[in-house]
Amino acid sequence: MKLMQLYAAMKSDLQAIEDDMAAAITSELPLLSEASLHLLKAGGKRLRPVFVLLSGNFGNYSLETLKRVAVPLELIHMATLVHDDVIDDADIRRGQPTVKSKWDNRIAMYTGDYIYAKALTVITELDKPRIHQILSSAIVQMCIGEMEQIRDFFNVDQTVRTYMRRIRRKTALLIAISCQLGAMATDAPDRFSHALYRFGYNVGMAFQITDDLLDVCGAEKAIGKPPGSDLRQGNITLPVIYALQDERVREELLREITVIRDTEGPVNSSAAVKLVRSSQGIAMAERLADRYVAKALQALDTLPDQAAKRNLAEIARFVANRSY
Amino acid sequence: MKLMQLYAAMKSDLQAIEDDMAAAITSELPLLSEASLHLLKAGGKRLRPVFVLLSGNFGNYSLETLKRVAVPLELIHMATLVHDDVIDDADIRRGQPTVKSKWDNRIAMYTGDYIYAKALTVITELDKPRIHQILSSAIVQMCIGEMEQIRDFFNVDQTVRTYMRRIRRKTALLIAISCQLGAMATDAPDRFSHALYRFGYNVGMAFQITDDLLDVCGAEKAIGKPPGSDLRQGNITLPVIYALQDERVREELLREITVIRDTEGPVNSSAAVKLVRSSQGIAMAERLADRYVAKALQALDTLPDQAAKRNLAEIARFVANRSY
Repeated sequence: MKLMQLYAAMKSDLQAIEDDMAAAITSELPLLSEASLHLLKAGGKRLRPVFVLLSGNFGNYSLETLKRVAVPLELIHMATLVHDDVIDDADIRRGQPTVKSKWDNRIAMYTGDYIYAKALTVITELDKPRIHQILSSAIVQMCIGEMEQIRDFFNVDQTVRTYMRRIRRKTALLIAISCQLGAMATDAPDRFSHALYRFGYNVGMAFQITDDLLDVCGAEKAIGKPPGSDLRQGNITLPVIYALQDERVREELLREITVIRDTEGPVNSSAAVKLVRSSQGIAMAERLADRYVAKALQALDTLPDQAAKRNLAEIARFVANRSY
Repeated sequence: MKLMQLYAAMKSDLQAIEDDMAAAITSELPLLSEASLHLLKAGGKRLRPVFVLLSGNFGNYSLETLKRVAVPLELIHMATLVHDDVIDDADIRRGQPTVKSKWDNRIAMYTGDYIYAKALTVITELDKPRIHQILSSAIVQMCIGEMEQIRDFFNVDQTVRTYMRRIRRKTALLIAISCQLGAMATDAPDRFSHALYRFGYNVGMAFQITDDLLDVCGAEKAIGKPPGSDLRQGNITLPVIYALQDERVREELLREITVIRDTEGPVNSSAAVKLVRSSQGIAMAERLADRYVAKALQALDTLPDQAAKRNLAEIARFVANRSY
């Protein structure tokens, strides 16, 4: 089944999640509702809900139950985006003005806090304390990941290992638990939820590496933001780390990164982007993303053969080959 | 029992909570630990832990259980302070530089997020989903309260009612659930946890009104920040709302508030503070705080007579008469 067909087949359940998300973040305070709904309307791939629903097929599938997992996970993802945009000083996300540019940083901070908290009220409707624990631990790790990112801004000496640890926390973990909790909420056997966690973790790693590749290689229209954004804010991603290992571009790239770091106000990263594109960094990062996809597919091996398993595999393959 | 004796009597349990708070926010990431611990070391009255412990006396008192309520509640309070300081652009809190002034706004935002999330991991160790629900709903309300505060900055037409609704969310609710959850966690009868909620709510209202009075009338050394901070950032509090109803100062005070609003950079609020001090606003706000204390004491009526009840009453009386 191709990806668009897959979304089409899940359409009504995904719509129910979308409706619940809108209901969850609608507040009696117009300012808060507007800022939150603005974000919701910007859309997105809704990867986390898709993973929750598909994973729920390995237990006793119940939309009512799965909504209470999918809605908070996607809301938490949204909350991190709002806070990220404050940090990144981003004006555009998914082709739309960000909350912090449309309102201001203060509004963006509390909108993020509010969406986080709303997510928790939804998940705590489930009478499964273990699920509450897993979610809150994941949020802790995500915060640490965000702090690591700040710490590592413009650090050109960071290793691939540092990068991996950071994206594991920042991205892979939330996707991993989307799969795990979809299974746990529907009382799937432990070995299924473990396998789904591993699947989600590896897909998440591939997803973030691809995201970082797209920031270097993608077209502005497809990725919904100007390319080179990561470098402009000092975020040294995998393709850049690999490019810095390429003697043909290393010195010039270091110089360009220093210029970006030391420039006050708007800065152009296109020379640096060009250097990374011309280096071995792209192919090496692509190879690593493919390895994670292969590991994700392998994690599915122990699961019973059914449509949901094939669909998860389809998404995993899409993740590393997408252009948006 | 006088207040200091009360703290002394609870010293070992409060110390255990302090230790657990430090352990909870210590992270493998030095930057995060430093920013969080900096905040912890600044101290505070630890009102929420005190209320949790005292309320736990109406059920089956267990420090192990009560710690899992007290630690998250105080951490959540701390997290809101970190985020508030970003919003308020505050450099000093409790006589210490704030996280945002010592590091920066980005660090302060993620430190707040991290402390929030850590609080949740601690409370979810309790196998009582109802407690998780109450806590997450309270955080939602607190975020709405914070947003209301931003919305109402420099709004000189706001009513006492608007102010009450805002401080209920911003302050009273967390103190109310500190009492309620201390009782619930130790399996106290429902009528006790309800009475304790009402007690905490009324104490919380009195507490915030007194806090707002201290910002106008307090001595810098005692309150740990320069007086008039609220007005400088546009936060129109109860004494100011009442002062604006006083024809003798209204026009002049409106002019001063407009000057503060329209001044770029550092601004002096001492003329406005002086006007509020000279108005009927102080006495009226004090009277309202006293009314809330009386209501709090009344809420204790249905509780069995024991030391904890007398101690709660002692704190309620202190709250409205404190000078720090």
